[in-house]
Amino acid sequence: MPRTTTGAQTKEHANPAREARLAIRGGKHRGHTGGLAPGYVQGNLCILPADYAMEFAAFCQRNPKPCPLIGAGAPGDPGIPTLGEDLDIRFDVPQYRVFRHGELADEPYDIGDAWRDDLVTFILGCSFSFDEALLDAGIPLGHMAGGENVAMYKTNIDTVPAGRFSGKMVVSMRFMTPADAIRAIQITSRFPGVHGAPVHIGFPEMIGIEDLQEPFAGDRPEVRDNEIPVFWACGVTPQVTVAQAKPPLCITHKPGAMLITDLLNKDLATP
Amino acid sequence: MPRTTTGAQTKEHANPAREARLAIRGGKHRGHTGGLAPGYVQGNLCILPADYAMEFAAFCQRNPKPCPLIGAGAPGDPGIPTLGEDLDIRFDVPQYRVFRHGELADEPYDIGDAWRDDLVTFILGCSFSFDEALLDAGIPLGHMAGGENVAMYKTNIDTVPAGRFSGKMVVSMRFMTPADAIRAIQITSRFPGVHGAPVHIGFPEMIGIEDLQEPFAGDRPEVRDNEIPVFWACGVTPQVTVAQAKPPLCITHKPGAMLITDLLNKDLATP
Repeated sequence: MPRTTTGAQTKEHANPAREARLAIRGGKHRGHTGGLAPGYVQGNLCILPADYAMEFAAFCQRNPKPCPLIGAGAPGDPGIPTLGEDLDIRFDVPQYRVFRHGELADEPYDIGDAWRDDLVTFILGCSFSFDEALLDAGIPLGHMAGGENVAMYKTNIDTVPAGRFSGKMVVSMRFMTPADAIRAIQITSRFPGVHGAPVHIGFPEMIGIEDLQEPFAGDRPEVRDNEIPVFWACGVTPQVTVAQAKPPLCITHKPGAMLITDLLNKDLATP
Repeated sequence: MPRTTTGAQTKEHANPAREARLAIRGGKHRGHTGGLAPGYVQGNLCILPADYAMEFAAFCQRNPKPCPLIGAGAPGDPGIPTLGEDLDIRFDVPQYRVFRHGELADEPYDIGDAWRDDLVTFILGCSFSFDEALLDAGIPLGHMAGGENVAMYKTNIDTVPAGRFSGKMVVSMRFMTPADAIRAIQITSRFPGVHGAPVHIGFPEMIGIEDLQEPFAGDRPEVRDNEIPVFWACGVTPQVTVAQAKPPLCITHKPGAMLITDLLNKDLATP
């Protein structure tokens, strides 16, 4: 017998993610989103013309570790109801970057004017979600303790190409004690929707990183004795890929100013 | 409505584990058990007088990584029905070691004569089970390729004492590429019943191992470039612990000549 719904009342719960989005939409918050709506998934944004969209969707499907797709819009539709009922991608990110033919053209606070009927929105998971899980597990993260950005590196690891999209993987790196590295591998394996398990541990040169003190992005990491560098696929990978493909138009979030979704980090975890 | 059983017939399936035990009991197999009854869990044996048994049970409970208890007998009872319906621990192991006051006294093929009404049997999981899972996942294991024993080391990691039982943890070590090490951590995390996740990776000296080329037991490992040493808690730990406690009587299996149980390795995996 199918389970019947017994008319339970739908309660209007406070939703800190929606409140943060509304503050952003109203121009009340324009900076980084780190620390806003703790526990809720924040996502990387990539908007492309329909002509490029299916190729990018295929690129994400083929490269789930750097490009974990957690939401997508229909062509021309600025809503993504699976990530927030009233979400409007034209106004709900604190600051955007508009690229034309691969060149940064503008950094607007909304993209109401830039929106077109052929644009498709992609939202990719970000390591904020698993950083929260690592901290909850008592694993110290050097970059967060110092209020810095995690160190990111270009590697020699090829992504799987799809149409005009291809290139090398970008990784983020966290130094950890051996015991914390083991625990971090266990924890992040449960979060395939936000980069999942590390792609490498131990030997930077094996993945084409010559000097850990020269990150491609983020801050220089502090090195401590008896710690192992642990490398995760990074959501900057698709940005580099898209920049190389030079589509006539591409809109992303400004780094650090993410889309706050109604998804809960803990709901991304596999059993 | 509760699901009803519809009288499905109970079929007598061939049981390679039981067949192997019967061959051993009949004196037809007296050597190592590696490769016998593939897919079935093999266990480490430790038999102690009742006077020591509860302390050892507590020691196992407090140290599940080196001492994963997968079966125990009632005092004086040589059967362990949870591991095999007709299992008789006095005859079903190919060769035993009898220790008196911590000294090796005998290596009999059965312990029918040595059995007493106050003896308690403990069966501990062994890394054979997770080695099988690693090989199934395509992770090469140097010691198995060379037909050697895995390298084992005494560490400076304290076990949690229980009564007269205490001491340092013994670990086994497998060299792996970084990618295989990450995968091996994921896989063995799903096998808490057979030592679980590694206790250490990367820096032998951090856990008191001065020279990987001087194992305490097993064969010297082959070192390859760009491989990481990965360390698991080892079932030799309780043997060393018991030897130090010097009970008047202790009976173990001869190394490599394990108890073959009716449990399946795959059934030990968590989801």
